[in-house]
Amino acid sequence: MQASLDKLLSALSALPGIGRRSAERIAVHLVSGRDGQRIERLVQALTEAAQSVCCCRECGAITGTERNPCEYCTSPRRDSSLLCVVESPEDVSLVEKAGVYRGRYHVLGGRLSPLKKQSVEALGIDALLERVAQGGFEEVILALNANVESDATVQYIKMKLEELDVRVSRIATGIPMGSSLAYADPLTLNRALADRRPL
Amino acid sequence: MQASLDKLLSALSALPGIGRRSAERIAVHLVSGRDGQRIERLVQALTEAAQSVCCCRECGAITGTERNPCEYCTSPRRDSSLLCVVESPEDVSLVEKAGVYRGRYHVLGGRLSPLKKQSVEALGIDALLERVAQGGFEEVILALNANVESDATVQYIKMKLEELDVRVSRIATGIPMGSSLAYADPLTLNRALADRRPL
Repeated sequence: MQASLDKLLSALSALPGIGRRSAERIAVHLVSGRDGQRIERLVQALTEAAQSVCCCRECGAITGTERNPCEYCTSPRRDSSLLCVVESPEDVSLVEKAGVYRGRYHVLGGRLSPLKKQSVEALGIDALLERVAQGGFEEVILALNANVESDATVQYIKMKLEELDVRVSRIATGIPMGSSLAYADPLTLNRALADRRPL
Repeated sequence: MQASLDKLLSALSALPGIGRRSAERIAVHLVSGRDGQRIERLVQALTEAAQSVCCCRECGAITGTERNPCEYCTSPRRDSSLLCVVESPEDVSLVEKAGVYRGRYHVLGGRLSPLKKQSVEALGIDALLERVAQGGFEEVILALNANVESDATVQYIKMKLEELDVRVSRIATGIPMGSSLAYADPLTLNRALADRRPL
């Protein structure tokens, strides 16, 4: 019993945002359901998702297994001269929700992080370079997050893409909409000033 | 694809401490693993736990399926004249870790909460009264949490147990060990003063 409980705890702790204490709480919640109904429901949902949801083999976005490459990669109504590079599959739907971008995507699956041993090989950077080298893209938009590791990743990708005939841009950093200077940290304000644009 | 993703999201959101945003993050993490390995690992851990871990049919504590009723209920080395009532199965191991209690347990599975429609029937209160009525217990220790709903539950159980020939007590509320008056809220200090004990 203890062994399988420990195994469940470590499987739960491996999920993003779940620490040891949360894992314990969830495990107790799951095993204390009547007749194992809670576990059964979760297992069923997981199994179904495993069968019908996967990552696009072209760009890495979440897609249905029956549609691979995904709609973003194949739709003729999207602009195939634009490529938007994001860190994680969730970011694709965030960019989509912004409603202004109608091109292709490329999911890196993380960012360069020497501390977490996240190397260039593990990220989809080689796949990205290959995809861009095959031609057809006029601009690569780097929609990575705004932090030190993402900055390093942006610099690395920019350096690599310079060898290829493509424009490279990065989404703007600055004061968030609806916010005010009072709530911006000095670094954000610094960037916002440096990136000021003529009116 | 969307239907099974939604189903996974709602199964994950139903877990304690997991909101919509965390559920999305976990779902994307799970389905974006190579070859469904992440989902497979979690499903395996869940299935194993479902097979080998359950709740004791006597007291409601977590136990192995091959040991039901659990060790707390059956061990002859534990004091069978004492019954400790707790809200959730995790609380059993917390009380055990305190190292001073060596009696039996009873898990309520929650507390009275009109807002959450947690009624007397749904809780293990009837089972508790029946267990105490069968005799053998000299003292019932209510080790419930310290909040309004738990207070109401304590009052209700006390009222019900008064009809039976058993002593009823509740664990003390007061200043936590290692803390100081400066960090105690007025209500805690109020209780600590009211429950002062002669030296």
